[in-house]
Amino acid sequence: MDAIDVITTKRDGGELSPAQIDWVVDAYTRGGAGGVADEQMAALCMAVLWHGMTRAEVSRWTEAMLRSGERLDFSDLPRPTTDKHSTGGVGDTITLPLTPTVAACGAAVPQLSGRGLGHTGGTLDKLESIPGWRADLRPDEMRRHLTEVGGVVCAAGSGLAPADRKLYALRDVTGTVESIPLIASSIMSKKLAEGTGSLVLDVKVGSGAFMKDTETARELARTMVDIGADHGVRTTALLTAMDTPLGYEVGNALEVAEAVRVLSGGGPDDLVELTVALAREMLRAAGLSGAKDPADALRDGSAMDAWRRMVRAQGGDPDAPLPAAREHRGILASATGRLTRLDAYAVGLAAWRLGAGRARKEDPVSHGAGVTLHARQGDQVRAGRPLLTLHTDEPERFESAAEALEGGYDIDGPEDALPLLIERVGA
Amino acid sequence: MDAIDVITTKRDGGELSPAQIDWVVDAYTRGGAGGVADEQMAALCMAVLWHGMTRAEVSRWTEAMLRSGERLDFSDLPRPTTDKHSTGGVGDTITLPLTPTVAACGAAVPQLSGRGLGHTGGTLDKLESIPGWRADLRPDEMRRHLTEVGGVVCAAGSGLAPADRKLYALRDVTGTVESIPLIASSIMSKKLAEGTGSLVLDVKVGSGAFMKDTETARELARTMVDIGADHGVRTTALLTAMDTPLGYEVGNALEVAEAVRVLSGGGPDDLVELTVALAREMLRAAGLSGAKDPADALRDGSAMDAWRRMVRAQGGDPDAPLPAAREHRGILASATGRLTRLDAYAVGLAAWRLGAGRARKEDPVSHGAGVTLHARQGDQVRAGRPLLTLHTDEPERFESAAEALEGGYDIDGPEDALPLLIERVGA
Repeated sequence: MDAIDVITTKRDGGELSPAQIDWVVDAYTRGGAGGVADEQMAALCMAVLWHGMTRAEVSRWTEAMLRSGERLDFSDLPRPTTDKHSTGGVGDTITLPLTPTVAACGAAVPQLSGRGLGHTGGTLDKLESIPGWRADLRPDEMRRHLTEVGGVVCAAGSGLAPADRKLYALRDVTGTVESIPLIASSIMSKKLAEGTGSLVLDVKVGSGAFMKDTETARELARTMVDIGADHGVRTTALLTAMDTPLGYEVGNALEVAEAVRVLSGGGPDDLVELTVALAREMLRAAGLSGAKDPADALRDGSAMDAWRRMVRAQGGDPDAPLPAAREHRGILASATGRLTRLDAYAVGLAAWRLGAGRARKEDPVSHGAGVTLHARQGDQVRAGRPLLTLHTDEPERFESAAEALEGGYDIDGPEDALPLLIERVGA
Repeated sequence: MDAIDVITTKRDGGELSPAQIDWVVDAYTRGGAGGVADEQMAALCMAVLWHGMTRAEVSRWTEAMLRSGERLDFSDLPRPTTDKHSTGGVGDTITLPLTPTVAACGAAVPQLSGRGLGHTGGTLDKLESIPGWRADLRPDEMRRHLTEVGGVVCAAGSGLAPADRKLYALRDVTGTVESIPLIASSIMSKKLAEGTGSLVLDVKVGSGAFMKDTETARELARTMVDIGADHGVRTTALLTAMDTPLGYEVGNALEVAEAVRVLSGGGPDDLVELTVALAREMLRAAGLSGAKDPADALRDGSAMDAWRRMVRAQGGDPDAPLPAAREHRGILASATGRLTRLDAYAVGLAAWRLGAGRARKEDPVSHGAGVTLHARQGDQVRAGRPLLTLHTDEPERFESAAEALEGGYDIDGPEDALPLLIERVGA
């Protein structure tokens, strides 16, 4: 096998053979002498961006990445396992109420999650704002919590899909992130490695999401659903709107507090609707359609009970006060009328600049930083009244956050918001 | 400037700005912190393969590579300068008779040449088979020989277009060699750096050439002619056939001997025809159309005189016996009839396997190794009579060389040879 042969096959529009895929992924992950060099993999990734991959190629590529590391197995648990993956959004607090809700309805949720990079928050960053909570669990701890509590949200160990970690870092600096088959195989190799029996994908569409249009999002969803099916993991996807933030809170501790309101039977309509829709999909995928309904679990306190057990199992105190930012500043509405647009990307960028996110992997996040919405798309607002509140520990951040919000909303403008639940992909 | 911006501009089909091109070529050549990494340049090269480059882009890219190093200047010589570049062929001995012929007609030829890699020989390898001849000249030696003798053939110093050297090595391992704008800018950056006032390109087409079809060769020729014009160097191109070897000899010393036969007023028709055609183009490009005709220079001994002066000026002895291989083996014709095809690539590969070429830059070549043709395309051959003679110092090489020739010729097959001079590109 020769890296140049593999590159030129794809460059010239050919289909990579299973042997070529297995070799190139393995030789790249190994590196060193006889391996595939960074510059060779970068050229191959650009050729994949150019010509795409067939279903057989992308499934095999995912399989090769999966085989680069260990694969967890929870098939012997007393409960069926199911998980959700979101492609990332602004104010996307869903994992926090969703995991205990699904656990309360009888499934086990082995959620391996990440820290945020860029304008969409990371689930682990949010949970780490809970005093004492820790993200790093050993596989035996995961297994115990799944059995006893029904849900874990934890950091993926470095042993899972190491090929993906190396490849993602390369794509990040070579302009080759935006390839549907490479995105799909990256996500699915990690999700298949975590050993879930079924999977629901929340593919976000809109200004605050990675996928800006429904067509591309649908293609990504279809590709991931096919990869799941090819690996014997029942997978479906929902395309959901991310043109405006979910809920009223964007930030780490701010979103935890909002998630707790949802788990108390309250909280914003959109968060509740999406939590229930995804929970029903997950239960159906796990073969538990006839079990308790997620809306009931939110109402009757069983989801909240599961949340408190989950937080305690990972060292957190569910009753401890959450960290809050020291400085606040209001952004006032510029006119009176109907808020026809509040842009997710602008709000996400503002929260990021306030300290809620990080620019480099090694940066810390501020748990209290973020943005609170006082009105949401469709609401009436009044000139001079607060539209948003900015939270930060470092007041010198206010100016650049406010700049991010300039042009980020319209009052009495055209209305063309996406419906929250756009469509479903999968059997 | 940011490498990812440059990559994604080209990836998405955009045109790179002059500032982007200047920055990326410079930052890649510099390397190190703040530079452009190999994997980033590899991704960019693949994106260039995908989307191509406009004339403005490829001229600027060439300019940026040119500016990465020194540029010789011979504009103050008493004679006009002109040079030829060939894209490489099998038995392509042309530089050897051409340079002294053009010098004999009044121009000065500052030919910076290379060593061979792969199945087409390198001009320096051929000349180095002349005892004492040396390829490395300082700029002041080049200048003196150009003034006194009218021609030099020497190695390009490492100070000329260092960007191209680094970039070519990268393209070689990343499947990104086959891009017309990258090939054209690579060749032209070196040729413009050598300080010639005009340039004639011999773009080879056929099985033994890098360009397999006339259309691609024409595009390469047109791109290079445009780059030359954009840099004030009058440039024209001839597309010439390389489906069968030129002349009767393929190998280093073998081709030198054949070149000397041409310079003596004899030699194979095709070598003579191509030498005269390219020499006339060069003289026209140099503004010397009314000067002595190259055919006369070959007939009257003045080209041979120039050759002997050139060889001596670079330390060679034009009267010394040339090295010869110790072992010989005949390849016999398999049938009686007309030799309708003798494939350039097969013969080039055989010569390479006999030791005439090298697999890695640091390998030595065998000066005596090669292939002698006893018949050429169109000739009558007789079953059992020698068609080719293989020359080598290592008889264990005969078998793989003979294998390279299997299927490499047809007797009484279809005839569709290209004409030697296919077409001319340029003003």
